[in-house]
Amino acid sequence: MPKPGFNPLVAELSQPPIPAVQAWAKAYDGAHGQLIDLSQAVPGYPPHPDMLAWLAEAAGSAALAGYGAIEGDAATRAAYAAHVSELYGAIIRPENVHLTAGCNQAFTVAAMAVAGPGDAILMTNPCYFNHETTLQMMGVEARYFDCTADNGFVPRIEDIADALDGVKALALVSPNNPTGAIYPPALLADIFAICRERGVWLILDETYRDFIASLSGKPHDLFARPDWQDNLIQLYSFSKSFCIPGHRLGAITAGPEVIGQVAKVMDNLQICAPRVPQYAVARGLPALGGWREANRIEIEHRANAMRAAFQHVTGWELQAIGAYFAFVRHPFDGLTSSKVAEKLARDYGVVTIPGSYFGAGLDRHLRVAFANVGAEQIGDVGGRLRMMT
Amino acid sequence: MPKPGFNPLVAELSQPPIPAVQAWAKAYDGAHGQLIDLSQAVPGYPPHPDMLAWLAEAAGSAALAGYGAIEGDAATRAAYAAHVSELYGAIIRPENVHLTAGCNQAFTVAAMAVAGPGDAILMTNPCYFNHETTLQMMGVEARYFDCTADNGFVPRIEDIADALDGVKALALVSPNNPTGAIYPPALLADIFAICRERGVWLILDETYRDFIASLSGKPHDLFARPDWQDNLIQLYSFSKSFCIPGHRLGAITAGPEVIGQVAKVMDNLQICAPRVPQYAVARGLPALGGWREANRIEIEHRANAMRAAFQHVTGWELQAIGAYFAFVRHPFDGLTSSKVAEKLARDYGVVTIPGSYFGAGLDRHLRVAFANVGAEQIGDVGGRLRMMT
Repeated sequence: MPKPGFNPLVAELSQPPIPAVQAWAKAYDGAHGQLIDLSQAVPGYPPHPDMLAWLAEAAGSAALAGYGAIEGDAATRAAYAAHVSELYGAIIRPENVHLTAGCNQAFTVAAMAVAGPGDAILMTNPCYFNHETTLQMMGVEARYFDCTADNGFVPRIEDIADALDGVKALALVSPNNPTGAIYPPALLADIFAICRERGVWLILDETYRDFIASLSGKPHDLFARPDWQDNLIQLYSFSKSFCIPGHRLGAITAGPEVIGQVAKVMDNLQICAPRVPQYAVARGLPALGGWREANRIEIEHRANAMRAAFQHVTGWELQAIGAYFAFVRHPFDGLTSSKVAEKLARDYGVVTIPGSYFGAGLDRHLRVAFANVGAEQIGDVGGRLRMMT
Repeated sequence: MPKPGFNPLVAELSQPPIPAVQAWAKAYDGAHGQLIDLSQAVPGYPPHPDMLAWLAEAAGSAALAGYGAIEGDAATRAAYAAHVSELYGAIIRPENVHLTAGCNQAFTVAAMAVAGPGDAILMTNPCYFNHETTLQMMGVEARYFDCTADNGFVPRIEDIADALDGVKALALVSPNNPTGAIYPPALLADIFAICRERGVWLILDETYRDFIASLSGKPHDLFARPDWQDNLIQLYSFSKSFCIPGHRLGAITAGPEVIGQVAKVMDNLQICAPRVPQYAVARGLPALGGWREANRIEIEHRANAMRAAFQHVTGWELQAIGAYFAFVRHPFDGLTSSKVAEKLARDYGVVTIPGSYFGAGLDRHLRVAFANVGAEQIGDVGGRLRMMT
């Protein structure tokens, strides 16, 4: 009997990378001290006790066990709109907000709202691997322009201009995953302007914005433009800054027309985002600002520790470091980034993600999620890299 | 400046139906007594207190705030595999289980795993509207065969045989949404056999299986077939039987090859299902069997109350009633089902869903989620229908 086949768009996807990397980590025998996990972006400290209390309160409630509104609970949309308004010095209304089950889902529904099979979306190389595989499984063509070490992995406006023809959207991540690069507000303004001129959506994922070191001002001024709703779809995750990735909560900020399209996709995908984290985040956004700022400063310390660790290891080069991530060039000529990451994890207990997972021509690189571990542990990284070289 | 457009596959989708129906309900002024909400399938009783306690315990845990495995937590997959094994008298292993954020998501990822843009999936008419819009937004062609009142809205095997050419999957819902029809085990065996013969996936959504009245045996014997993994993808929701739809948890049961494809889609969509309900369901599955059985019996009472309510209303016809839903023919010749449902909700406080939302040629029908409200309230339905006619 003929065995039915799979969707080739899905069958051809590579396996999710994080579990493969975790398998290498499990094989480490502890020979050089404690495992240092710099792979999946996971805050290395627990949620605030008040956050856990609000989560527990919500989960114990029969009322919150019921379905919520597709777009999200009104109180949470209002709390997040107020937060975004304050952060960006702009007027964002609850109608501009759609809650999702994490930021991967925010990207999926945003991309689906604007691009269908056969359309193209432009991304950076390197890019966040789940963005790439999401487009692939939807039959949307992923196009790329290069971001390179000599420009700190920050896009050049002329590279974007050259590649914008025929795409439905430009998808950017700032602060960037995997490089950590923070795109300057002036560059983002220029990028928005060119997208606007060319009739292209700008999907801007700012999952890591709460970890921008020594923030001198707002991440960008796009929300202050009177025409932002015509072209901008902005994405965010509550997972990192509240340390609750297992609860799955993210947000889309966009014009009401976009929110209307997104709601149709979300209704199909999962009806509504889980309500427990919605309840807790509505309380945590105003109440835990100080705690989040302290974490930002702590992660700045970790970035400094990472810079220090790389000063004394010959051959390894810290090519970019910003909010949460660093992008590192390894010294091994004949080895793929997978081989290097595997060896580093298995034999030396330092877990990173191979550059090749993030795009073409990146076999000399590793992504390092330095925010995951304390400054003291980061101090050990240099010694282990030296041992390996 | 050119304004960018939306994905036509999404732009052309109709608005999610539940909020529209809820707006009619809000307009009811209480003239005929309390609102009777028979629209969205929502259990009309709260979760078990132990369930709320486990949910709260999980939500208060820092460990469970972290990411989980893509396929689901090991303990939950094992508990669900044991439950399915017992229910169907078959051997289902944890590797056969993938947890999802509700059953809409289970359907989305299952459909995406087997069908891409340009492929076709066969469904019943009437069908569950979210299945239809999910395929539409993915660019998958939805094909239909009719299930009709004269056969209790149960499929005829010859209708399926006639329509199976060139489809990647047959998607069925039993007990059915919207009609409540329960497909007999022998019919499901024949349907599986024909799918197997023709190399077509059978996607079987059994969200409402815990509410089959007077269950004489298992819902079907498919899992006992040695070859079930080659063609069957079975879906389930914890929302209804544990009364936790706001927590978003569902499950796919399939062969490990399918689970592998599903995991790639899930990683893109949302990394993992929320962990709080996973923890609680792992405990509730073995512990709350008695409570769930009591609810099944209660809903059987409600079905009987619904049958009684329809015995004394002229012109209205209860064409199908089974687990959770009834499918009703209204007496108004010149009115669309939307008009009838709107009038019934606004003026008489009885909220149902128009037949036209479930497919073509169904403007004489309404879906009634009788399980939502107690038998006493159901007793009032007859009186209000009489007033309307």
